[in-house]
Amino acid sequence: MDVLIGKKGAMAYVLAVVTGFNNDDKVVIKARGRNISKAVDVAEITRNRFYQEAKLENIEIGTETIEDRAVSTCEITLTKGEEAKED
Amino acid sequence: MDVLIGKKGAMAYVLAVVTGFNNDDKVVIKARGRNISKAVDVAEITRNRFYQEAKLENIEIGTETIEDRAVSTCEITLTKGEEAKED
Repeated sequence: MDVLIGKKGAMAYVLAVVTGFNNDDKVVIKARGRNISKAVDVAEITRNRFYQEAKLENIEIGTETIEDRAVSTCEITLTKGEEAKED
Repeated sequence: MDVLIGKKGAMAYVLAVVTGFNNDDKVVIKARGRNISKAVDVAEITRNRFYQEAKLENIEIGTETIEDRAVSTCEITLTKGEEAKED
């Protein structure tokens, strides 16, 4: 599942991620521009407080061109990580 | 070399990264909180416009506690990447 970070508070997206783990083993938190900081907050709050088994699988950054302006993008992939509990 | 992202415009830090590559093979762009978005901008502008051989080696996110508040952190490691040109 993808969670797109927008204008709401971080907790709204943390809830979306935690809910996403009910259906999916993998949640990708996606953000552009200034919302990238919030995406990192969402991943960290999820991992530290609400779903401590979650594993940070991957982080990618990139650039998109929107209306002739370059905008940075970020995708943070979290997995349920229960299989990885043994380490 | 480390480049700490603060209040200046992104270009000031892009210049610091490009200058850093004169002395070091590796530059780590570090940011906290809202400056994380700017750190991604700095990495992307450097890679896309000023130092296209630069290679994105690693991205790490974490949490620091500052004055009892949890603050997200991000470290983006860029390398000169000239050795990696063959691929």
